[in-house]
Amino acid sequence: MITIRDVARQAGVSVATVSRVLNNSPLVSPDTRETVMKAVSLLGYRPNANAQALATQSSETIGVVVMDVSDAFFGALVKAVDTVAQQHQKYVLIGNSYHEAEKERNAIEVLIRQRCNALIVHSKALSDEELGAFMAHIPGMVVINRIVPGYAHRCVGLDNISGAMMATRMLLNHGHQRIGYLASSHGIEDDALRREGWKRALDEQGIVAPESWIGTGTPDMQGGEAAMVELLGRNLGLTAVFAYNDSMAAGALTALKDNGVAVPQHLSLIGFDDIPIARYTDPQLTTVRYPIVSMAKLATELALLGAAGKLDAAATHCFMPTLVRRHSVTQRQSVGTITNF
Amino acid sequence: MITIRDVARQAGVSVATVSRVLNNSPLVSPDTRETVMKAVSLLGYRPNANAQALATQSSETIGVVVMDVSDAFFGALVKAVDTVAQQHQKYVLIGNSYHEAEKERNAIEVLIRQRCNALIVHSKALSDEELGAFMAHIPGMVVINRIVPGYAHRCVGLDNISGAMMATRMLLNHGHQRIGYLASSHGIEDDALRREGWKRALDEQGIVAPESWIGTGTPDMQGGEAAMVELLGRNLGLTAVFAYNDSMAAGALTALKDNGVAVPQHLSLIGFDDIPIARYTDPQLTTVRYPIVSMAKLATELALLGAAGKLDAAATHCFMPTLVRRHSVTQRQSVGTITNF
Repeated sequence: MITIRDVARQAGVSVATVSRVLNNSPLVSPDTRETVMKAVSLLGYRPNANAQALATQSSETIGVVVMDVSDAFFGALVKAVDTVAQQHQKYVLIGNSYHEAEKERNAIEVLIRQRCNALIVHSKALSDEELGAFMAHIPGMVVINRIVPGYAHRCVGLDNISGAMMATRMLLNHGHQRIGYLASSHGIEDDALRREGWKRALDEQGIVAPESWIGTGTPDMQGGEAAMVELLGRNLGLTAVFAYNDSMAAGALTALKDNGVAVPQHLSLIGFDDIPIARYTDPQLTTVRYPIVSMAKLATELALLGAAGKLDAAATHCFMPTLVRRHSVTQRQSVGTITNF
Repeated sequence: MITIRDVARQAGVSVATVSRVLNNSPLVSPDTRETVMKAVSLLGYRPNANAQALATQSSETIGVVVMDVSDAFFGALVKAVDTVAQQHQKYVLIGNSYHEAEKERNAIEVLIRQRCNALIVHSKALSDEELGAFMAHIPGMVVINRIVPGYAHRCVGLDNISGAMMATRMLLNHGHQRIGYLASSHGIEDDALRREGWKRALDEQGIVAPESWIGTGTPDMQGGEAAMVELLGRNLGLTAVFAYNDSMAAGALTALKDNGVAVPQHLSLIGFDDIPIARYTDPQLTTVRYPIVSMAKLATELALLGAAGKLDAAATHCFMPTLVRRHSVTQRQSVGTITNF
């Protein structure tokens, strides 16, 4: 590995001078700069990002913590952060946290040690206090999909309850009354809020949903399939189902097909998120759009502003989901035509 | 930000002594170590990863370069690297390269500057010479899905031609002769190799595939839909199609449904990769399994061994794909029953 010392020797100057040239110090003469840059190019020396980060107490990397980068939703989040990072000539350092407190804490600590001065964190397992303590230390840390008290201007949130109410009201407006919910087995706030929205919309119509209308699984296709099989087995006469997310809804579609239940003729189904797959299921999924790309881009801009000490402390950033009408929801059929469910 | 100087002041020792303690130097007495560690804990000092990386010329991060982390295939690759990284208490730094030479070069340069001493690179746009030059400098750099001459022991490859031949032979064995190919518009080696395998398998049966049997699109669901629409429009009497990857095959399914072509009754379809979605399409996709998780795990282990100077220079690492039989391929129907295509 070529070091700064090799460059200094080759150029016949001190290490400090080479360092000044590489950091664009105005204290260096044009001649010296040229001599040093010739030596840099001759030896193929690469400035050490760690040394630069030490000198400036910042780094060329933006940190991002997500549940799991291989999940379509979080993949889209990371890609959006990367898009903004590229515009600022920065690079992305990711940590997977798997919705576990220990791993979330660890991932944040590592990114701080790497001197990422801008951090976008999707944390679900850590307490408000612990996140607040991190945010107090790191002005460029922004939390996505959660509002941390005292740091609302550095949080980008989504109104999950309203989104779930929209979905459930749409089903109610199509004549459905017995509406099930496919819940996520990750005990995170998002699931509690979407469940709450589903309950509230039913309440508005005087419908009290029993616990038996809820099927639970991991928030992916496999989990959605399992949760739907569980609901089908209970034989509850449901005519519609609201799923925690699109992946679960896609898995539920498979379970329904395997059991001869046609969507939407026999059962209406609505998802949440609007990930790309929602346009490629059969039928295409009606869903609640989570504007994760816009939210992640905003979070990244806020993190960079925060790192530069330029944030507006009075602003708040709560996004509202929207309904995407495709082909998995229809009017409830009269009882005689329901054959299977 | 608490610095090492604050710790030294609090402990009443020199900065060099604090540094020795933090780097576990044997030159420090147990008493001094205790005094320093008390000051570290009192002040909440976090050792700077960049300073540690400078001192040891390595870092706690493993670098990975992929085309696009939001693509299911590359998401799985990054997750597999992360799994091995966690076992070694290391963290993952990713760069998206979008199959562009400039971005691939940039991503690798940045990771090197961050002093990642282990690097897993999926590079398609850079030349063998340029990759070889990087690998000569960085003993912990491993290339995935490509064999760089002179560095075969640090490359983890897949036999794409054999995989494509397997797929095409399966269709031939089911009586199909007019077999189309959905090609990727990213002009990368994988596409050329899969196309070659498809051609060779047809050649074996004396079938010469004209260019018109190839539809082209981006290697995702949208691109697969577009490429399939293109093929349908040409009205070629194809009875089977081999797709560059599962995402394109999933998109093609949508196009076929929209046009009333039943899969597999009217048209057999086979994908490549075996990403999770392949089990959730309707019908479930028959496909060629790309063992990307095993390959990425091996690549990560090799990169860590390479960084430690412990690689076996004689080993090679070429994986063989396997056929996954699901429900999108069937025997060719007699001509009378083909209604649409």
